[in-house]
Amino acid sequence: MSGSPESEDELVRALRERLATDDGRVTTSIGDDAAVLADGTVISVDASVEGAHFRREWLSLPQVGFRGTVAALSDLAAMGASPVAVLSSVVAPETSEVQALMDGVGEAAHLYGAPVIGGNVARANHLALHTTVIGRTRAPWTRAGARVGDAVYVTGTVGAAALGWRALEAGRDLAPFIARWRRPRARFDLAPFLAPTACIDVSDGVALDLARLCHASGVAARIELARLPVEAGFAEACATMGLDPDALAIGGGEDYELLFTMPASLDPSVATRVGEIVEGEAVHVLGRDGVVERGRGGHQHF
Amino acid sequence: MSGSPESEDELVRALRERLATDDGRVTTSIGDDAAVLADGTVISVDASVEGAHFRREWLSLPQVGFRGTVAALSDLAAMGASPVAVLSSVVAPETSEVQALMDGVGEAAHLYGAPVIGGNVARANHLALHTTVIGRTRAPWTRAGARVGDAVYVTGTVGAAALGWRALEAGRDLAPFIARWRRPRARFDLAPFLAPTACIDVSDGVALDLARLCHASGVAARIELARLPVEAGFAEACATMGLDPDALAIGGGEDYELLFTMPASLDPSVATRVGEIVEGEAVHVLGRDGVVERGRGGHQHF
Repeated sequence: MSGSPESEDELVRALRERLATDDGRVTTSIGDDAAVLADGTVISVDASVEGAHFRREWLSLPQVGFRGTVAALSDLAAMGASPVAVLSSVVAPETSEVQALMDGVGEAAHLYGAPVIGGNVARANHLALHTTVIGRTRAPWTRAGARVGDAVYVTGTVGAAALGWRALEAGRDLAPFIARWRRPRARFDLAPFLAPTACIDVSDGVALDLARLCHASGVAARIELARLPVEAGFAEACATMGLDPDALAIGGGEDYELLFTMPASLDPSVATRVGEIVEGEAVHVLGRDGVVERGRGGHQHF
Repeated sequence: MSGSPESEDELVRALRERLATDDGRVTTSIGDDAAVLADGTVISVDASVEGAHFRREWLSLPQVGFRGTVAALSDLAAMGASPVAVLSSVVAPETSEVQALMDGVGEAAHLYGAPVIGGNVARANHLALHTTVIGRTRAPWTRAGARVGDAVYVTGTVGAAALGWRALEAGRDLAPFIARWRRPRARFDLAPFLAPTACIDVSDGVALDLARLCHASGVAARIELARLPVEAGFAEACATMGLDPDALAIGGGEDYELLFTMPASLDPSVATRVGEIVEGEAVHVLGRDGVVERGRGGHQHF
């Protein structure tokens, strides 16, 4: 490698190369939503760091814990795994803050049936929650199985959490959207209805997460902006903020919905078909003006 | 609970109570060196946060990665588990720093035969490494099995890492001791020779970690200061720093040696017998003056 990787994805690719393993105990390693061991154990780690992922004034301490835990659990949902357990590594200035944060962790863990079985506490002058989640599956859904001709689906609606986050940043009261950012859900509920060839959760925006899925599968995707499912009132709420709803729907992150591919046969009440897998690479987006552009946007953590 | 817990141990006890689980998939939960699932999967999380656990000038970035990973793996050694895999959640200002830190993580993981299978990266203005380790065991060693009449053993030597850390803090060149702090080892090598009734690794000092083991087992311990194994030249090096070697041997932390109990029958080349388990509670320390005191000291992270 020459020079430093400039984006999160380049960094992860460099690390995957550096740390590649042929250990028979490991089925899926760096580069998917979670790692998978040969016995069906699925493990993922996610971080929620003050200053990087949130500001104190945007979340109560229990909300930091709840949100960080659900975001981590979502990686298990994206692998088609059932949640088994949670471990929380907490950094905070005060013990009372650790307890308040862990109240939210405990609530999320209880909601998804995954007890908190361990973790770590440390004192520092900032808040951080690093969450490890353990799950179980017999047949993991990875990012790598999408085939030309598959349909591309997304569950729920997208863009709402990103709008809520922008509203918080701007000091605007868009309560239902702020709630979507503050209190996400992990989509374990839909697993029984899905048989994806590839799956990822929408943590960094449809465009970027779909590009990751396509890259892992060695395919391209073509999606239509007009088909992206959004909440009722989304466009109007975006307008009050001077934001482009399409840009937010395709580029906003932290929805924690599932973005997946499978042969087109799904009941539309389960998920929305937004496009299809084609040959090539990258994500092509058909705009409302009929022009196809290469998808951009999404949130890279570096 | 009334008020806030003031020490790390009180905090962990409060969290264990708050988050107690009777989930049949979980064998050992919060409060031991690692959690254990019913299928023999052992999981632990450990943190190494700039400002809380180290200063930049004390460790190179690969050393931060190496040290943090070994400290986490040591929790598996303390459970009698074999290492299977490592996940690293890294916070750093720059991608190049993540890579340098991960070089050390990769080195430690390779050394202990546990591939790095995942993690997370995030940008912030400080450095942090939160390490998740996965291991496997058929019969975990917990902190809870010590019986009256068992001998208390410790592997290797104690106090050396704490002396090294103090030397770094004071800007003194005590290279061999500094190396013990910078480059610890996890004691998987001794597992075949041990059959402990209870075990913990020495992360926060013999006195505190033995008190934890005793508390979990519902017993007391009586140990002798003069029996604590220290490095050759340890007392002399302490003297040059104006430090009490006994206080450092019993109260210093981050040795990552194993402190365990078993019926007295062990080859002295494997571990040093430092005392025995008795009825009661707390740790009683026989000083060189023949006076028995209740053990104190050790490092609480809050």
